[in-house]
Amino acid sequence: MNALSLDTVVLADNKKEMIILDQTLLPGEIKYLTLSKAEDIWEAIYALRVRGAPAIGVAAGYGIYIVASQLETDDMDAFVKNFKEKKAYLDSSRPTAVNLSWALNRMEKVLEENRDKLTVAQMKERLCQEADAIREEDIAISRSIGNLGFELLHHGDGILTHCNAGTLATAKYGTALAPVYIALEHGWDDLHVFCDETRPLLQGARLSAFEMQTAGVDTTLICDNMASITMKRGKINIVFVGCDRVASNGDFANKIGTSGVAILAKHYGIPFYVCAPSSTIDMSLKSGDEIVIEERPAEEVTEMWYAKRMAPEGVKVNNPAFDVTDHSLVTGIITEKGIAYAPFDKAFEKLGIK
Amino acid sequence: MNALSLDTVVLADNKKEMIILDQTLLPGEIKYLTLSKAEDIWEAIYALRVRGAPAIGVAAGYGIYIVASQLETDDMDAFVKNFKEKKAYLDSSRPTAVNLSWALNRMEKVLEENRDKLTVAQMKERLCQEADAIREEDIAISRSIGNLGFELLHHGDGILTHCNAGTLATAKYGTALAPVYIALEHGWDDLHVFCDETRPLLQGARLSAFEMQTAGVDTTLICDNMASITMKRGKINIVFVGCDRVASNGDFANKIGTSGVAILAKHYGIPFYVCAPSSTIDMSLKSGDEIVIEERPAEEVTEMWYAKRMAPEGVKVNNPAFDVTDHSLVTGIITEKGIAYAPFDKAFEKLGIK
Repeated sequence: MNALSLDTVVLADNKKEMIILDQTLLPGEIKYLTLSKAEDIWEAIYALRVRGAPAIGVAAGYGIYIVASQLETDDMDAFVKNFKEKKAYLDSSRPTAVNLSWALNRMEKVLEENRDKLTVAQMKERLCQEADAIREEDIAISRSIGNLGFELLHHGDGILTHCNAGTLATAKYGTALAPVYIALEHGWDDLHVFCDETRPLLQGARLSAFEMQTAGVDTTLICDNMASITMKRGKINIVFVGCDRVASNGDFANKIGTSGVAILAKHYGIPFYVCAPSSTIDMSLKSGDEIVIEERPAEEVTEMWYAKRMAPEGVKVNNPAFDVTDHSLVTGIITEKGIAYAPFDKAFEKLGIK
Repeated sequence: MNALSLDTVVLADNKKEMIILDQTLLPGEIKYLTLSKAEDIWEAIYALRVRGAPAIGVAAGYGIYIVASQLETDDMDAFVKNFKEKKAYLDSSRPTAVNLSWALNRMEKVLEENRDKLTVAQMKERLCQEADAIREEDIAISRSIGNLGFELLHHGDGILTHCNAGTLATAKYGTALAPVYIALEHGWDDLHVFCDETRPLLQGARLSAFEMQTAGVDTTLICDNMASITMKRGKINIVFVGCDRVASNGDFANKIGTSGVAILAKHYGIPFYVCAPSSTIDMSLKSGDEIVIEERPAEEVTEMWYAKRMAPEGVKVNNPAFDVTDHSLVTGIITEKGIAYAPFDKAFEKLGIK
């Protein structure tokens, strides 16, 4: 089994349900969930059954299409009103990843542009096409990022990645791990991938290590706090991470701990690349200070996964799901349109990102 | 209950057994183990039932006394030979903390100095006294480090600590947490302690957070990878960590992840202090490159504590138990004799550390 063959989010053949891989059960169990209720889709995103900014975007596209289409009506005004309510609801599932609202807004734009031209039945079909397009484009974007990132690699390189920005985080290939998949396609068999386990939700241990191992890559799992010694030992030549939202100045939000990895990489003189579909770049934000950081429940740190509670009862816990990395720590931002180097605002402009 | 009232290692009243608090069960269960067999004492150190460099030293002192005294003989040569065999065995339980071999060497020195003066029965008593002295001195050393560290604190400070170098890591008070206990004695109630959970063995979550919370300190648990955002948010004014071995140039080994915390502290301009009983300073080492780093089993990362395995079967795992922090990242090293500032070799000399 190769994780690359697992579909993270697809539309069911009946076009009324979406099928997602429940990533909270990996790597021990491969289980697909068939979802159609708004509450179930919301919960799947909130509980990280589907996760990774691009995959959330794909799930949001299918989700709003499926949920909006459940209203049996010929009245476009009623359809639009219901669409917007459901959109706001789905949009509330997670605050940090821009792709969630990006995909929902893209779907809404299709709605607005066609509300006077199409019947409700036609609109449902049009929304389905748009959701499919989001998924197909996501695959093309990942491949493009993979090709650009692959050009940065050398035979025998050690690659550090944090969290999971692999095929499981997208429709296919991933962002941060896409260069490794492209390298495999080129027959490279001498890369070494080190996966930060990524507490508290262990996406590195459960997902990245699983992906890379099943793809046949030499894979080593480390605890987050081992990145420093691993770099010091000379095992890391390049860092690839994904991202959830990039500000116009190049500051970016990604899984908690990413900023620490970036600081370590700078200390040890290791190139640090962010893999970012242009949809994650939010040019409306001047800097990372404007990015809302999701705070998640304490139990994810103290109890989740464990056989018994691992911290004293009642102790205060901080559990920010993301942190913001300063652009000064970033070597380059790999988008599907090209690699941006500092100053990032001008580079984004040159790449046609608005 | 206040963790400060828990004894980590004491000699039983019968003077033939040692009683240790099994720290692998904290914070859920407070259970003492009564040990006398060499294998059990070795296992208790190896499995971190007793841990923390100073507490390991105390356990080693009692351990070699108890085990050596089990030989019923009047022949000093036989006693010495058996002592040395048992000493080598206990010394093999963990390689990185200098206190283990330091305490065993100290006990052996007493043996050598008195082998021609005392009977075996007298020698057993003398070794018992020496082991008691190691414990009593450890308490005095911790208080002294606490007093010196307390002078560095300001009301309202946020303190970050990594792993556990508290009362549970010593005979009493701890090293890195001793300044907080001294502050409490002075009536300070406005300090904030942030505990890195410290994967894979969670000493921060299980031990430091437990100690600080039961002592009545405002305590917040974070995952290791949240130290960066916590510093960035301005919540940390000072970092205190313990250490397992310090080289003459100030490089030091401490729990895995410490070097990363030091790099982050430097990046954010936060003072970073190492709390080091002079027994942990190994002047025979020119630099940290000479410190042996213990590599521990992969299962500690992939399975231990968990309800089910959290990483793919067969994946490679690195699990170094310690890392070495470069002296250039250290603001000061707090010993019981005074605070050493760079250049550390000269500062150690001035403090009378040989």
